[in-house]
Amino acid sequence: MAKEKKVEQITDMEVDFAQWYTDVCKKAELIDYSSIKGMFIYRPYGYAIWENIQKLLDAEFKKTGAENVYMPMLIPESLLQKEKDHVEGFAPECAWVTMGGNDKLEERYCIRPTSETLFCEHYRDIIHSWRDLPKMYNQWCSVLRWEKTSRPFLRHREFLWQEGHTMHATAEEAREETERMLNVYADFCENVLAMPVTRGKKTDKEKFNGAEATYTIECMMHDRKALQAGTSHYFGDGFAKAFDIHFTDKNNQQAFPHQTSWGVSTRLIGGIIMTHGDNSGLVLPPKIAPVQLVVIPIAMHKEGVLDKAREVAERLKAAGVRVKIDESEQSPGWKFAEYEMKGVPLRLELGPKDIENNQCVLVRRDNGEKTFVSLDELETKAAELLDAVHQGMFEKAKKNLTDHIYDAETLEEAKRLQQEHGGFIRTMWCGDEACENRMKEEAGMSSRCMPFAQEKLGDKCAICGREAKTMIYWGVAY
Amino acid sequence: MAKEKKVEQITDMEVDFAQWYTDVCKKAELIDYSSIKGMFIYRPYGYAIWENIQKLLDAEFKKTGAENVYMPMLIPESLLQKEKDHVEGFAPECAWVTMGGNDKLEERYCIRPTSETLFCEHYRDIIHSWRDLPKMYNQWCSVLRWEKTSRPFLRHREFLWQEGHTMHATAEEAREETERMLNVYADFCENVLAMPVTRGKKTDKEKFNGAEATYTIECMMHDRKALQAGTSHYFGDGFAKAFDIHFTDKNNQQAFPHQTSWGVSTRLIGGIIMTHGDNSGLVLPPKIAPVQLVVIPIAMHKEGVLDKAREVAERLKAAGVRVKIDESEQSPGWKFAEYEMKGVPLRLELGPKDIENNQCVLVRRDNGEKTFVSLDELETKAAELLDAVHQGMFEKAKKNLTDHIYDAETLEEAKRLQQEHGGFIRTMWCGDEACENRMKEEAGMSSRCMPFAQEKLGDKCAICGREAKTMIYWGVAY
Repeated sequence: MAKEKKVEQITDMEVDFAQWYTDVCKKAELIDYSSIKGMFIYRPYGYAIWENIQKLLDAEFKKTGAENVYMPMLIPESLLQKEKDHVEGFAPECAWVTMGGNDKLEERYCIRPTSETLFCEHYRDIIHSWRDLPKMYNQWCSVLRWEKTSRPFLRHREFLWQEGHTMHATAEEAREETERMLNVYADFCENVLAMPVTRGKKTDKEKFNGAEATYTIECMMHDRKALQAGTSHYFGDGFAKAFDIHFTDKNNQQAFPHQTSWGVSTRLIGGIIMTHGDNSGLVLPPKIAPVQLVVIPIAMHKEGVLDKAREVAERLKAAGVRVKIDESEQSPGWKFAEYEMKGVPLRLELGPKDIENNQCVLVRRDNGEKTFVSLDELETKAAELLDAVHQGMFEKAKKNLTDHIYDAETLEEAKRLQQEHGGFIRTMWCGDEACENRMKEEAGMSSRCMPFAQEKLGDKCAICGREAKTMIYWGVAY
Repeated sequence: MAKEKKVEQITDMEVDFAQWYTDVCKKAELIDYSSIKGMFIYRPYGYAIWENIQKLLDAEFKKTGAENVYMPMLIPESLLQKEKDHVEGFAPECAWVTMGGNDKLEERYCIRPTSETLFCEHYRDIIHSWRDLPKMYNQWCSVLRWEKTSRPFLRHREFLWQEGHTMHATAEEAREETERMLNVYADFCENVLAMPVTRGKKTDKEKFNGAEATYTIECMMHDRKALQAGTSHYFGDGFAKAFDIHFTDKNNQQAFPHQTSWGVSTRLIGGIIMTHGDNSGLVLPPKIAPVQLVVIPIAMHKEGVLDKAREVAERLKAAGVRVKIDESEQSPGWKFAEYEMKGVPLRLELGPKDIENNQCVLVRRDNGEKTFVSLDELETKAAELLDAVHQGMFEKAKKNLTDHIYDAETLEEAKRLQQEHGGFIRTMWCGDEACENRMKEEAGMSSRCMPFAQEKLGDKCAICGREAKTMIYWGVAY
């Protein structure tokens, strides 16, 4: 069977998850390697997923009052150095431009690894009065980080993302913004990408360079490793002071504004693949799938089949469904395998017998379930099934998450649970970075977050036995 | 009057057109300077114009079958050098990355000035059979060219654009694509941006580095200088041979595909400003205006005014109009001037007397015309007036174009006409680059294009007097 042959091309996820992942990225034609290590080509199918993510997420940003801008891609070295913690964190991974045409530049420019410094410089010029606040800017762009290792979608030297940078009159407003945007990301992951998240705060060790606090959403992949899917940072007025951004407040006093930044990247696509994929390939959440439903005519050369299939496709398009009809000469079996590989949420099969019975077959990608649907109810049923696919994907992923959160009272227990089950290990923690480092060295786990939903698992830090301050999640992360 | 005060802030275009242009860019808050020479900040209002252009143009691309991708921003020097003419043209304006983190790179990478080489490398990997053709990819990104001089929107070191790169089985198909995309640009300029264009072919001297032929659309600005607004290039199989891209054709023979590329950039926004703007500021074509209609409540504090103004704004929003209501404490006069500066196509005034009469006043930005509109017909009339504004802007610009095309029989006459009137000078031309160079040196004009709509103005080249081959447009260009 053509289908089996095609499916054989990818490694079983149980055999080698990393290889399965790479196979899916390549065979579903999401991404390709370029001649520069760590820099990837986003192919049409992969980029179309990103476009759908952009469109929906951008609308959410705009609802909060954010406005889009575009800042230069180069940062003068002197500008990057204005905030000490920030430059220390990023300088080792900057790509430096030193020549313009044939001339050596007087000052080096780095390609933006992130743009806090550029936004701050602009904000200094345009923020003068409390009337100018808040300023809530976002940009969609690519950034460069000269990483040593790379992996499609998960770690690129150049990756696509959005970065929001906001300035507020008070610390309270800025903190609210930081949480608001984390919740925008969390809701988006759950309601659009069908990826359940854990919301929480990063430890000081894991927070963003130069931030006072970093909030995060952590997802659990199918292999029970953690993926940091989005972050939102609160900066206080540290950058504002370093960049001399100040304004006249309502009482006619000079004050420094309080700052946030927040971002998600094409890493989300890696998360989608590893949350939902299976041994037949990709499984795409319907809301961002470039093709939501593929029409496969059966016994295509029999009279009336192709006409009816086209009519059905047109009806669904008119109802707002993203439809593709495959009229190629390949066998139905080949086509089934192809669109399973590409993760198309619904397959519509239509043959002479179906036409006789005024029906078609709809097959769900997430669980293979077949439904016979009367053509009279086509649009309604397709919409219902797309919702059902989303819901089914979310519930399956949610179960994977909740089934693999384990409580531990000691470092030894945490280590053993991780080795046996993977997943998130919850412990109490004293808040000391030394304990965090021990967990990393001895159990191979980094702190993922101190979840907003705290529980009291005991009084003592699982690592040192001293008094605990917080519950914390540990995991092995991408 | 507040209004007069505001308008005084910009230079009269008749006094100093260049300064007027810069003033509009700044005061309408479209763009700002950054700390790197020639690199600009696209501010929310300017970027929103670009987003609207992107959205509409992208839909046109997709209708032709083009798909979006994203290629790396860096090009290894060895890759750039594969096509000789191409690298000769671009190397002098490349920004070079020589350091990654703390390490000197083995090979320099340039930040893409354009991406033919990257697309070719990828096409080599994915084109094998005639079944793989055509490939029609596009990307929206920024590119870098280390220019010596700069000007907002017209000449940046970094600018936003789109670049389409396509591969076809035959030369004929590739030539058709080159013309198709030029026409997409031309129609977009005329039907969406209200900018009339002249369509034609570039001379060999002015064509793109490495292309066999370059097609162009040339617009005339208010000061009667020319703006090259978009180009489409035919490459033949030159790059395909240099990059060893080949495929098995239908006859099972090895063949090289034929290539095109085409692009427009944020330079279009410069064109909009200089085509339509006036001494009160920007005048935006309704189809891409971030705000199409601004509601200004008059005597805002009188009972019922604000409620009615909000109701009217909501009704127009529901009808699909991009509406803003200005409820700020500024005077109506200040607001009038502000939204004139920002080029909002329609202003809606609504005061207590209007409410009494169940009407409002709609004022066109392009010609100041006032219309009293019954609130019963609000949505219809607003839509009609937005169309009328577009049409009025197009006709005005069309008149400026056709009124300033002059025929000349000698270089002397061409020079005199340009000095007296500006605009496009049409002559016959022998096709010799020496004559083209003389026109530049002696009359200060470059060749703009050999228009598709040819006329025979005589038999002799206006410069050398030898036999003419073609009619050609000359002008002073941005």
